[in-house]
Amino acid sequence: MTLALSEKEPSTPPRPRILIVSGPNLQLLGRREPEIYGTTTLEQIHQHLITVALAEEADATTRQSNHEGDLVTWVGEAALQGFNGMVLNPGAYTHTSLALYDAIRASALPAVEVHLSNPDAREAYRHHSTIAAACLGRVAGFGAASYELGLRGLLLALRAKTTG
Amino acid sequence: MTLALSEKEPSTPPRPRILIVSGPNLQLLGRREPEIYGTTTLEQIHQHLITVALAEEADATTRQSNHEGDLVTWVGEAALQGFNGMVLNPGAYTHTSLALYDAIRASALPAVEVHLSNPDAREAYRHHSTIAAACLGRVAGFGAASYELGLRGLLLALRAKTTG
Amino acid sequence: MTLALSEKEPSTPPRPRILIVSGPNLQLLGRREPEIYGTTTLEQIHQHLITVALAEEADATTRQSNHEGDLVTWVGEAALQGFNGMVLNPGAYTHTSLALYDAIRASALPAVEVHLSNPDAREAYRHHSTIAAACLGRVAGFGAASYELGLRGLLLALRAKTTG
Amino acid sequence: MTLALSEKEPSTPPRPRILIVSGPNLQLLGRREPEIYGTTTLEQIHQHLITVALAEEADATTRQSNHEGDLVTWVGEAALQGFNGMVLNPGAYTHTSLALYDAIRASALPAVEVHLSNPDAREAYRHHSTIAAACLGRVAGFGAASYELGLRGLLLALRAKTTG
Amino acid sequence: MTLALSEKEPSTPPRPRILIVSGPNLQLLGRREPEIYGTTTLEQIHQHLITVALAEEADATTRQSNHEGDLVTWVGEAALQGFNGMVLNPGAYTHTSLALYDAIRASALPAVEVHLSNPDAREAYRHHSTIAAACLGRVAGFGAASYELGLRGLLLALRAKTTG
Amino acid sequence: MTLALSEKEPSTPPRPRILIVSGPNLQLLGRREPEIYGTTTLEQIHQHLITVALAEEADATTRQSNHEGDLVTWVGEAALQGFNGMVLNPGAYTHTSLALYDAIRASALPAVEVHLSNPDAREAYRHHSTIAAACLGRVAGFGAASYELGLRGLLLALRAKTTG
Amino acid sequence: MTLALSEKEPSTPPRPRILIVSGPNLQLLGRREPEIYGTTTLEQIHQHLITVALAEEADATTRQSNHEGDLVTWVGEAALQGFNGMVLNPGAYTHTSLALYDAIRASALPAVEVHLSNPDAREAYRHHSTIAAACLGRVAGFGAASYELGLRGLLLALRAKTTG
Amino acid sequence: MTLALSEKEPSTPPRPRILIVSGPNLQLLGRREPEIYGTTTLEQIHQHLITVALAEEADATTRQSNHEGDLVTWVGEAALQGFNGMVLNPGAYTHTSLALYDAIRASALPAVEVHLSNPDAREAYRHHSTIAAACLGRVAGFGAASYELGLRGLLLALRAKTTG
Amino acid sequence: MTLALSEKEPSTPPRPRILIVSGPNLQLLGRREPEIYGTTTLEQIHQHLITVALAEEADATTRQSNHEGDLVTWVGEAALQGFNGMVLNPGAYTHTSLALYDAIRASALPAVEVHLSNPDAREAYRHHSTIAAACLGRVAGFGAASYELGLRGLLLALRAKTTG
Amino acid sequence: MTLALSEKEPSTPPRPRILIVSGPNLQLLGRREPEIYGTTTLEQIHQHLITVALAEEADATTRQSNHEGDLVTWVGEAALQGFNGMVLNPGAYTHTSLALYDAIRASALPAVEVHLSNPDAREAYRHHSTIAAACLGRVAGFGAASYELGLRGLLLALRAKTTG
Amino acid sequence: MTLALSEKEPSTPPRPRILIVSGPNLQLLGRREPEIYGTTTLEQIHQHLITVALAEEADATTRQSNHEGDLVTWVGEAALQGFNGMVLNPGAYTHTSLALYDAIRASALPAVEVHLSNPDAREAYRHHSTIAAACLGRVAGFGAASYELGLRGLLLALRAKTTG
Amino acid sequence: MTLALSEKEPSTPPRPRILIVSGPNLQLLGRREPEIYGTTTLEQIHQHLITVALAEEADATTRQSNHEGDLVTWVGEAALQGFNGMVLNPGAYTHTSLALYDAIRASALPAVEVHLSNPDAREAYRHHSTIAAACLGRVAGFGAASYELGLRGLLLALRAKTTG
Repeated sequence: MTLALSEKEPSTPPRPRILIVSGPNLQLLGRREPEIYGTTTLEQIHQHLITVALAEEADATTRQSNHEGDLVTWVGEAALQGFNGMVLNPGAYTHTSLALYDAIRASALPAVEVHLSNPDAREAYRHHSTIAAACLGRVAGFGAASYELGLRGLLLALRAKTTG
Repeated sequence: MTLALSEKEPSTPPRPRILIVSGPNLQLLGRREPEIYGTTTLEQIHQHLITVALAEEADATTRQSNHEGDLVTWVGEAALQGFNGMVLNPGAYTHTSLALYDAIRASALPAVEVHLSNPDAREAYRHHSTIAAACLGRVAGFGAASYELGLRGLLLALRAKTTG
Repeated sequence: MTLALSEKEPSTPPRPRILIVSGPNLQLLGRREPEIYGTTTLEQIHQHLITVALAEEADATTRQSNHEGDLVTWVGEAALQGFNGMVLNPGAYTHTSLALYDAIRASALPAVEVHLSNPDAREAYRHHSTIAAACLGRVAGFGAASYELGLRGLLLALRAKTTG
Repeated sequence: MTLALSEKEPSTPPRPRILIVSGPNLQLLGRREPEIYGTTTLEQIHQHLITVALAEEADATTRQSNHEGDLVTWVGEAALQGFNGMVLNPGAYTHTSLALYDAIRASALPAVEVHLSNPDAREAYRHHSTIAAACLGRVAGFGAASYELGLRGLLLALRAKTTG
Repeated sequence: MTLALSEKEPSTPPRPRILIVSGPNLQLLGRREPEIYGTTTLEQIHQHLITVALAEEADATTRQSNHEGDLVTWVGEAALQGFNGMVLNPGAYTHTSLALYDAIRASALPAVEVHLSNPDAREAYRHHSTIAAACLGRVAGFGAASYELGLRGLLLALRAKTTG
Repeated sequence: MTLALSEKEPSTPPRPRILIVSGPNLQLLGRREPEIYGTTTLEQIHQHLITVALAEEADATTRQSNHEGDLVTWVGEAALQGFNGMVLNPGAYTHTSLALYDAIRASALPAVEVHLSNPDAREAYRHHSTIAAACLGRVAGFGAASYELGLRGLLLALRAKTTG
Repeated sequence: MTLALSEKEPSTPPRPRILIVSGPNLQLLGRREPEIYGTTTLEQIHQHLITVALAEEADATTRQSNHEGDLVTWVGEAALQGFNGMVLNPGAYTHTSLALYDAIRASALPAVEVHLSNPDAREAYRHHSTIAAACLGRVAGFGAASYELGLRGLLLALRAKTTG
Repeated sequence: MTLALSEKEPSTPPRPRILIVSGPNLQLLGRREPEIYGTTTLEQIHQHLITVALAEEADATTRQSNHEGDLVTWVGEAALQGFNGMVLNPGAYTHTSLALYDAIRASALPAVEVHLSNPDAREAYRHHSTIAAACLGRVAGFGAASYELGLRGLLLALRAKTTG
Repeated sequence: MTLALSEKEPSTPPRPRILIVSGPNLQLLGRREPEIYGTTTLEQIHQHLITVALAEEADATTRQSNHEGDLVTWVGEAALQGFNGMVLNPGAYTHTSLALYDAIRASALPAVEVHLSNPDAREAYRHHSTIAAACLGRVAGFGAASYELGLRGLLLALRAKTTG
Repeated sequence: MTLALSEKEPSTPPRPRILIVSGPNLQLLGRREPEIYGTTTLEQIHQHLITVALAEEADATTRQSNHEGDLVTWVGEAALQGFNGMVLNPGAYTHTSLALYDAIRASALPAVEVHLSNPDAREAYRHHSTIAAACLGRVAGFGAASYELGLRGLLLALRAKTTG
Repeated sequence: MTLALSEKEPSTPPRPRILIVSGPNLQLLGRREPEIYGTTTLEQIHQHLITVALAEEADATTRQSNHEGDLVTWVGEAALQGFNGMVLNPGAYTHTSLALYDAIRASALPAVEVHLSNPDAREAYRHHSTIAAACLGRVAGFGAASYELGLRGLLLALRAKTTG
Repeated sequence: MTLALSEKEPSTPPRPRILIVSGPNLQLLGRREPEIYGTTTLEQIHQHLITVALAEEADATTRQSNHEGDLVTWVGEAALQGFNGMVLNPGAYTHTSLALYDAIRASALPAVEVHLSNPDAREAYRHHSTIAAACLGRVAGFGAASYELGLRGLLLALRAKTTG
């Protein structure tokens, strides 16, 4: 049964390369008001994800930018750079960036949208995701763990495709 | 570092009891057009989730109904029945049931909304979740694995609360 | 009794039979978080309404269900069952149930819509009542007393019709 | 049990002073087309409410104006004038007056919105109440009796606060 | 006189009394920027309308106020004051005053809505008339002559009713 | 004073030529259900308008078609045909025809929109006039007399321009 | 014949005359891309409907035009031409033609709206029917058979009226 | 020619099994206000449809429920139960039930939506059908005959598929 | 450089007369709940503004009313009364009063809209200003200082016009 | 000729026949207000397009009508008439004609939408094109040159298809 | 006749300098999925446009960026850099960038909006162009040829201005 | 200095550091069309603001970028960089940038929104400010003086907080 996150496949799928991209304001994690947002920084999350990926026999590359254009470039050229899938937390650009949506479509890679909080439970203008229609799935509301759950879901999907 | 899904806590938190509820049409999983939807039935998913919960030192109880009223009753009385958290896949009621939203609020339990597909990537009327504002988080788009990722995310959150 | 604007009628109107119906989640009243919602249960409210009705020389029958279909059946067949009027607290179905609206219309009985809280003062999606256009009036915002005020208003209206 | 409208409290709460305000066109009650609207005038309703209040050991003061500005002044200064609560029938200003909403908020007094007819059962533009979010509750659809039911509901709420 | 489609009536209808009401800012006519708006004042228009009415064997009474409440009072009590019809130029209140709409309805008199300019040809928020549904007809866009055309149309309608 | 409809100008303005155009279904006037709509036919109205025009030293040409294209042609080419103004009753095309709006603009002639009934007092989709922004004014709600009042208003406006 | 819910009428109702009108683009049926739309032409459908009508002791007259104005004329004057009912497939004008709606109303004849496909299952702008509010019923989605089912439904309704 | 409802196919297609489902309030047919809605009960309609089906060499199974969940179950499992097509009158759930839409899709059976009245000619909220996009066609406005016309249309479509 | 608020112009511009108008509920400032809104009354603000104006060699006249009609009169006639500019805080009428918008336009004076709080940061219905399109500018969110900043901005603008 | 991105094709594609259709009011070009719209008539544009087509070894046929029905007929039957592509300037029907949209779809020919002005830069109701979804492309804003650019674009596309 | 693209003007207009700007994701042209999007790269298009410009005695400068800010800078400063017109393909920023709209306005240069595909024929959110109101025209749907057609249209317009 | 409503503080508050940020296109101030926009450049405004701040015993730092990402970075990290408050003129990003809104919230600093013109008096899409809900206040419509008035308002607010 292949539902399990942990059960390894006996076959040897190609080692997936995953691009993990965070958008605006996420560089502030752990650096502002730690009594509210905690002390975990984005770098620590990045480090943890790389470790998780390694344990899953995958490689994770992490990036962050406040510039929509950077996200568009990284995502649109991800396949050309040899990536096999993407975990995206585009922050506020989730709700406004058609350019990012086009970039995901152009990449033709499976992408997972992740969010620290649950946007559908916040202000109305966060209920719409401009990029969702180009994404495989979404994980939201688990804080930093959303990244990890999203990464694991993406790896499962990539492996299902490989072995399916 | 507590982000890992697998790293166990040395302390002994109380063993959480999780209610897993599926809504309309999910009883058909694996029984209609297996060449499209696969052959995994809802019972098999349930069985797998119970196993995952046990491995995480938790107990999972699974239920399904096509009746909104059943879902409202199970969810609204979940705390009275001794549950500590809920994984909900309300199917189409996700988008229309205010009664279920009120029931989650009344239960005062952490709830995770899960979906096999990614509703935000489907028809416009599936972009709005009536219950999201009462939920801790959402996992969507990973097929049957959405349930497991949602369950794991819920357990992480419950443990963070316990040890936080 | 001073609720009537005009003096009591010397004639003896037929003893009205009133159906009192509550909808989803109202079975939880007094059983969850009593420090917030109080300790009065729905049964106690029902008992009180029956007593009020008797004092007003009327008979009250009380029902509750989380199933929209039950409410539709009870309301649609109320006249066939010999009821003369209805006090309805359809909970969240107030805002979504066209079937209940059709049932009230089909019953051709005077109905009063009651709510513990004041829906117009809550979230926007509670501002619209699907059933209001089929109802005689509304009492909202007085907690459990909304039921009693609604029942008294209904009896006044029934007597005005009888003697008018 | 304190749900009853009639059961008096043994303790002696302070005697509440209630302001009853009616808005545009209500001065016409009973003076135009009595075969349709009946012959009861607003003065008769006022007189009845004063009597009801006295029987409930409260004092009622009644006012009417077609000027939004008068309503705003009376309501906004009600607490400064020593009132403890308000029964408001703002007529058509119910649906348009933000100034009246602000005045109720500024008064910081409990207010009950009453209507002769049931606005939610009439034209769509009467479904929205601009003032509801500042009001304790609403009574609508019982003709002149809406005032009395609203007054009784307000007195119940004031006493619950006093003795709660 | 040639306005009538059919010939003059030989019978002698009762002499109609017409109330002509103007709303906010119309007191400024002819007093501000005469090079743009002309030098005709509202008083001159009023005087002209009284003359036209007399020539048509009718009586015209003219009023103006910037207060919505004044308009509501005058219109709502017009029938009680013995008027048989109304010509109304409610200025900006045309687009916002539900109270005036209710007053026209309450008066049960035929009313003609007139405007100096053509509101449907101006900003979008002037395209909706709150009072139109209570009015017999509308004349707009002919400057001061809109009043006279509206008055003549009203008199035609009143006579058609008398002789019809 | 030039407000009067009847006072002739001493000067001799050029004799205006007026095009009067009626749209869909108006050919049925007086031919269907005379007990409701009366027995006056469109030809009779046309004849009356020609007479009124003559009395005002103007010439009226009348046309009717159920084809939007005919209306567009007649109106768009009206100035080329030597007309000085237009009275238009486009029936249902009032609310949908952008082509007619463009035609009026292209004609650069003053146009008056007339309606037998008062569209703003009817169904919501009749509240919007697609052509209003290209029209001098509107007369509505006076039955067949709307045509005559509109014609007189147009002649007044043409003369004001001539002598202004 | 088994379409009737109740048995055949022994009496002899007047032989109904039915007008069958098709709108824009329907002249292309069977002439373009027969591998997709089939080879049945509109003339063949017309011939079949006439045969069905005859078998039902009724007369069918068939027309088609791409001009809204033609449809408006035929429908508006149908009663004057001696027709007793209409089967209408206005094609795209279904969704935009207020003039056709007015024409059906003016005809005061029962009309059935038919469509080859099911408009409610197609693009959103085909979900609204401008003419539905003037029609007895709708048959849609059965291809050419929609015409026949609509014709039979109309005949049933005409006979129910005759014998009811 | 295969358009005719009555002409039988010479070949022997498999005998179709049809599920006929009615939704909320339809159990009241013929039991409430017979002077308005007639005396035909739902059972009588059911009996008639079974007879019609038999005459057409098909089998009809009839069901009714006020519970959305029952409709969802019956429809979603119809193919598993051996049905070949469905005639659905979901009453008010037509306009709100996404779950029923999903169930029809899941059944992968041809479904015909039928209504006694013509929803598009009633209140605006009945103009939208949530299930239409999953249905083959619609018959509406012919009273009880809508069921029969829908059943015949469905059988035609099933046979066209069989022989096409 | 003329940007400075304090640098006086060497030339002697005419001494500007400024009208300062406050709308509904602002008479309550400092009289209700001083622990929240502070103890500064509207009179004290008025006194301060007069002092500021004097220091800037201008004259300020201050007024307040809860009546929309008073505001309309004062503003519409401001130029006739000799004022050169206006500072307006129309309270809730900011969002609803077309009449006030028309009055500002009619005055043809520069007007500055001021608000104690920042309406765009409050409820959605406060985001729209009906009068903004007639105003030179807006100052909002600085409490009582909004008046002073608005007055200074207005004086700067008037002087720029004078010396520009 | 340099319009082609790639060099001329050595092969000899079939000589394309192009239908050029203009809609309402375009017959007025050059005949009204030449100081604004220029003196070029539609016939001159037509003549120029025929010349351009010839130079490109294609044949152009030009038509104009104010009747939507004519456009629908010409476009819907274009393929049957032997045309290979269409250049359409439907004027105001661009924004309202679903029938024209259906006709383009039915023709199954490549169509280019052209406009003298840039509709997206004009009034909001010109921003939506009803026919765009059926068109290959759009050229707008270049005056009469829009036709030529559109024709050239169409020819390029036809040749790309032929040689692609 | 000046409509022709190719006929040169005998006079010697200043040699126009054209800025050609492409936005997000257009750097990917020809580099991703050549079997779908072809193998032409943006550089090849740029090279072709420069050649076309030279042949037309103009100079073209080409730029691309995924950063909205770069587009804003290049466009806003284009006139300062000596450009005479612009061809813009802002990709997804077409639909969201107010800043780019402001930049075009600030440049005061004629701009032509070009698109490879026809946005009005794609998803609804691509139907609105934020920048159209600042543009001379649009060419869309011709693939890479849209650039060339747009460039030619712009040069025609610039020359018309020069020689007009 | 007279901006303060209350007298100067005798204490010595910490010297506030203010970040002044301008967004897209503001670098063009004074460099394009000086006859319209004046000759004052953004650098001159910056210099003036620094001088004003110094006179108020504060420090101002000024920045401008056309890149949303730069604004997000500067604002989000302002507190980390030691700033105490911000004056923001985000240009067109005011109406679209959720990322900037999040950045202001994340900074937890008081921010004042300033605009040269009055956005609420311009196109509809400038009436909504995405960032307003995160801002202390707004100053708009005073040209370059908006910056200074905003800066003074911010300093007043900071001092009120310090001494409050």
